[in-house]
Amino acid sequence: MTTEFDKPIKEPPIDPWGSILIEDYQRMIESFGLEPFDVGAFPKPNRLMRRGAVFAGRDLKQIAEAVKLKKKFYVLSGIMPSAEKVHFGTKMVVEQVSYFQQHGGKAYVLVADLEAAATRGISLEEAQERAMNFHIPAYIALGLDAKKTTFYFQSENKEVMRHAYEFAKKITLNEFRSIYGHADPSRIISALTQAGDILYPQLKEKMPGIIPVGVDQDPHIRLARDIVHRTRSTHKFWLPSSIYHKFTPALNGEFKMSKSKPESMIELPEDMASVRKKIMKALSGGRGSLEEHRKLGGEPEKDMVFELLKQHLVEDDAELKDIYDEYKSGKMATGELKQLGVDKMEAFMSDFSKKLEKARKIAGKLNFVKF
Amino acid sequence: MTTEFDKPIKEPPIDPWGSILIEDYQRMIESFGLEPFDVGAFPKPNRLMRRGAVFAGRDLKQIAEAVKLKKKFYVLSGIMPSAEKVHFGTKMVVEQVSYFQQHGGKAYVLVADLEAAATRGISLEEAQERAMNFHIPAYIALGLDAKKTTFYFQSENKEVMRHAYEFAKKITLNEFRSIYGHADPSRIISALTQAGDILYPQLKEKMPGIIPVGVDQDPHIRLARDIVHRTRSTHKFWLPSSIYHKFTPALNGEFKMSKSKPESMIELPEDMASVRKKIMKALSGGRGSLEEHRKLGGEPEKDMVFELLKQHLVEDDAELKDIYDEYKSGKMATGELKQLGVDKMEAFMSDFSKKLEKARKIAGKLNFVKF
Repeated sequence: MTTEFDKPIKEPPIDPWGSILIEDYQRMIESFGLEPFDVGAFPKPNRLMRRGAVFAGRDLKQIAEAVKLKKKFYVLSGIMPSAEKVHFGTKMVVEQVSYFQQHGGKAYVLVADLEAAATRGISLEEAQERAMNFHIPAYIALGLDAKKTTFYFQSENKEVMRHAYEFAKKITLNEFRSIYGHADPSRIISALTQAGDILYPQLKEKMPGIIPVGVDQDPHIRLARDIVHRTRSTHKFWLPSSIYHKFTPALNGEFKMSKSKPESMIELPEDMASVRKKIMKALSGGRGSLEEHRKLGGEPEKDMVFELLKQHLVEDDAELKDIYDEYKSGKMATGELKQLGVDKMEAFMSDFSKKLEKARKIAGKLNFVKF
Repeated sequence: MTTEFDKPIKEPPIDPWGSILIEDYQRMIESFGLEPFDVGAFPKPNRLMRRGAVFAGRDLKQIAEAVKLKKKFYVLSGIMPSAEKVHFGTKMVVEQVSYFQQHGGKAYVLVADLEAAATRGISLEEAQERAMNFHIPAYIALGLDAKKTTFYFQSENKEVMRHAYEFAKKITLNEFRSIYGHADPSRIISALTQAGDILYPQLKEKMPGIIPVGVDQDPHIRLARDIVHRTRSTHKFWLPSSIYHKFTPALNGEFKMSKSKPESMIELPEDMASVRKKIMKALSGGRGSLEEHRKLGGEPEKDMVFELLKQHLVEDDAELKDIYDEYKSGKMATGELKQLGVDKMEAFMSDFSKKLEKARKIAGKLNFVKF
């Protein structure tokens, strides 16, 4: 039986809990044996797909086919309710989930209350309350169709726990280490639960499924896929597919926004006075002087505000192209681009806050799985 | 902070899932840092305590004091509902639980349905059904006061799972390995859940507790005790006490009855024709011929039928003394001792079956914790 483990790993494994800088997405595709994302394979690609933020996947063909032939498939994501806010990475995940939901996927969103409770020392009730009051409304505000989504709390899903126990028997410590780069009891129990989550929608009905993730989450996908191979004789699960988006770069140009550096990131929601300050300080692709800028033109590729517009704030491709051209030609000054960023961000935050308010009212009436 | 790990382990760790032969209980006391059991410390000691089947413990003083001063304490045990039958080891555990229950301990019995489902590939429902139809009635038939016992299913106890997650963060893989002798994902998730079970009664109210176990289960006790040290700042748990009984020797004289050798063990219940055959073939302390036996006397210490009478089938000390003396002197022949064993076993099995029938009727009405 061929398993994921038969493929030699060229690079040290990525640590989904850590914050390793990953500088070369192309190298990751090669090292982890991912498929480059083919934007032509999916109908009406969303902004993230069109702009290259979505860059790779695993077994995407079975999902593209399910979309095309209107066959059953699922899309799944998890909420970690320990965080007080969400961030632009969360926004990407939700946009991807929404895309597949709109294209026929049955959406599952689980609340990782067990993990949150263990990590933050809060009670399960508190974790669940946070999810209900903020995270789920935020997902809805970011585009999730809540009425068509199945939600559950990890701690209440006996079937997930039961399968985490079963899957534990199928994997050795060394295999775990080869996937995650290290192994400790906490990560093991957590990863096995996540494998249970990833395969949960298939317990009742076997079907392909897609998990949109940042590439740092790939080990979870690999573990789940390997468990599918190992449980072939009892479960006959479809291998879960995955689709990877790049990180939103930090405002100072570093690889990834990081919670440990608040000045590098913008949270959702965040006070506009604070956002404005951060945008004004962000790494710019503008030149040293206005004169030089007019002459040489700006460098949108190196500009973090342009990056934000591209990844998150400008939906229309033609509009983005205009901004790019004007900045690149030097016609648009750095200050103007930053102001545009502030304006767009303000409109986005205002819209998000309104939607969040509305979503809070409906979060209590959702389709939670009862166990 | 002093932890269990600070004490050097002189012997390789015992594997509670394996079947290592442990030949010298005295050596175990020394190697594992156990306290020898002091029969004088507990009021009205039961048969197992009086006959030396109970031989060691950890932190028994806090339990003896709770018994004496009528302070709150708990006694806890688990049911593994994958097995079709129980055996004499189970009988010992239940008798110990009953002893502490009768002496003021609040009894908790959990059903390890998650583990059973993972081990045997049965559904949680099936595991729970087996527990309700057989294991819990068997515990009641063996002396548990069901009305005064709190039962729960592991899979339904969110608090146990939540704490298993929390405890996972307090223990490294190396520490786990030093306790269990090895570490793999399945054992880790299972052991952490058991630590959650052992400490569960203290989540609502801190109190001493005692876990009666065979010595092969000591690693679970050590893990739970170590977690108590590590979570001192948040939980202030009492260190769980433990009390150890010897194994019932195999009928052929080997150290321990073993399921892999059906001829070495008697199950509960078991057909009397089969039991009779096994007893007749059991290792005897009788002499080569009746003449020699009359002259030299039997060796009850080496006789497995006498061992069964002593550990399980003769409650009255004076009666046992008479049997010992008659056999030792040669007055009682080997065949007579075996027949006595068969008769006593028949009475026991008949009584057990009747009690089991009755207990089945009340098992559905028990005090299960609802989550």
